[in-house]
Amino acid sequence: MGGDHAPDAVVRGALLAIADGVPVTLVGDEARIRPLLPRGSAVQIVHTTDAVGMGEAPVAALRRRPDASIRRAAREVAEGRASCCVGAGNSGAVMAAALFELGRIDGVERPAIAMLLPRGDGGQLAVLDLGANVDCRPEHLAGFALMGAAFSTVAAGVERPRVGLLSNGEEEGKGNEQVREAGPLLAALPILYVGHVEPTDALRGGCDVAVCDGFVGNIMLKTVEGTAEVVGRLLKEEVLRRSSDRFGAWLLQGALRRFRKRTDWASIGGALLLGVRGVVVVSHGRSDANAIRSAILYAHRCARAGLVSAITRQLGAPREPQNAALPTA
Amino acid sequence: MGGDHAPDAVVRGALLAIADGVPVTLVGDEARIRPLLPRGSAVQIVHTTDAVGMGEAPVAALRRRPDASIRRAAREVAEGRASCCVGAGNSGAVMAAALFELGRIDGVERPAIAMLLPRGDGGQLAVLDLGANVDCRPEHLAGFALMGAAFSTVAAGVERPRVGLLSNGEEEGKGNEQVREAGPLLAALPILYVGHVEPTDALRGGCDVAVCDGFVGNIMLKTVEGTAEVVGRLLKEEVLRRSSDRFGAWLLQGALRRFRKRTDWASIGGALLLGVRGVVVVSHGRSDANAIRSAILYAHRCARAGLVSAITRQLGAPREPQNAALPTA
Repeated sequence: MGGDHAPDAVVRGALLAIADGVPVTLVGDEARIRPLLPRGSAVQIVHTTDAVGMGEAPVAALRRRPDASIRRAAREVAEGRASCCVGAGNSGAVMAAALFELGRIDGVERPAIAMLLPRGDGGQLAVLDLGANVDCRPEHLAGFALMGAAFSTVAAGVERPRVGLLSNGEEEGKGNEQVREAGPLLAALPILYVGHVEPTDALRGGCDVAVCDGFVGNIMLKTVEGTAEVVGRLLKEEVLRRSSDRFGAWLLQGALRRFRKRTDWASIGGALLLGVRGVVVVSHGRSDANAIRSAILYAHRCARAGLVSAITRQLGAPREPQNAALPTA
Repeated sequence: MGGDHAPDAVVRGALLAIADGVPVTLVGDEARIRPLLPRGSAVQIVHTTDAVGMGEAPVAALRRRPDASIRRAAREVAEGRASCCVGAGNSGAVMAAALFELGRIDGVERPAIAMLLPRGDGGQLAVLDLGANVDCRPEHLAGFALMGAAFSTVAAGVERPRVGLLSNGEEEGKGNEQVREAGPLLAALPILYVGHVEPTDALRGGCDVAVCDGFVGNIMLKTVEGTAEVVGRLLKEEVLRRSSDRFGAWLLQGALRRFRKRTDWASIGGALLLGVRGVVVVSHGRSDANAIRSAILYAHRCARAGLVSAITRQLGAPREPQNAALPTA
């Protein structure tokens, strides 16, 4: 029931994912969902009329409403009926629901939101935290580094990910107080720590995981989105300026379409909440059906690849997560 | 003498600016500069063999070497022989030299580095601080807001600039501790404060000035640079994939060249150090001759438009800055 275009875009995205072979359960108001499904559809619906609005304070709202759709969706994972869940609504509510229903992996003090961004060298850059924790202590950054390394291996296939600490300069002396204190903590972890990295170098391919607090990460993510948008608009303006250029652009239609697809950061699959005992994807509020489909396939891939077990191993926690033994498809 | 391609690129950039009608004085080692000038050139050289290296701690280096080239350049401004100065070397040294020789404008606690970024709506977004102050208190952000408003008016021609506070969400409750405390301070200033802004909205045109601490600003600036680079590379890859596309790209050569020029953030003119009693441009270390020329023209334009007086007025300081009465060209 969440997101700017819900439930319509969410239902259509789910149908696309089902067509790709991933079984999907829809959680929400059956009276509103059913009419959007093809007649006689066998898609499973978990009915609930409760939902958290975009403007609501998530924790309080979820405490009052144990059957809010996002909380019910997370419960499907917690109780073993689903291997992962996707939410496109109030992102604070997605996180809170995951914490209420799934709980944290042993050793995780602060779950974090992570995403893969396309790099200039063709690789993928994992960035975290993207907004779950706006005020962090240096130890929290160390936790993000461990989870980020496991995430890069599982989601981007990097065997030995190079982990960097996002900073305003590569030298040890650079960084704000938080970063300068976090450096030695990251250097002591059982990961391949490459020191301070600047966003420019990280996006070029200088590391596989960029660690930062949620405020800085959110600024970085939204700057990537905003810059890609500005660059796309300026390109369009220049190309439409002269009729000879318009003919060239017509010839380039296919290439420009592929280019737009690769730079549409919003539809790459959404962000993952790392550190909870289940795979939870926080999808962009403005997700269309295609973005929802990508988010579902992405969540499914991460669950199948054992994201939760990988993080648990990386953190050295002895207990296996609740849903590690579930069938994943 | 500063920058990756010094003194060659600097001298050639200065000659380009002189051809544009701006008189330039070169500061540095005459024995290395003279051979780069056309025979019989009347370009003025202030000779000094001292310089600060890229790796040196700037303040200590400048204290020991009062005749380091960047300090001598700032002194030209302080003593009224120049109306502005440009440095492409160690950016910490450019700042320290400006502080030593020019001093702060009354009421300025922390000078800041500011830059104009192209927005999606065709306007220009002033962002500060970009790295002069990595650890800031909320009051410092209020100072940046005042200086940024004056800067936007002078450098981008915005009569009543909309000033936003960079944050991870537009709602009042968003932001880290620093931002949440700074909000009410900015709201109380005699500027048009528009509240929290996300980078996406700021880059689209949601405000004219985005205020942040130097760590966050530096991350944002380098993310803009990195994203523009990645986007450009992906575009090139897609366009070169098929021969039919290559023909289209050939037709689009002119448009793509204009596009690259508009998105080459490094050559837009460099960053300004705001809050000192003179116009000081901190140019990118990798500046080529064209970027140096842009930086010189930019500094000259800001000096002529009365940047220092505008900041002084905005801060309500009674004294006029030292070089406000100088001829500016």
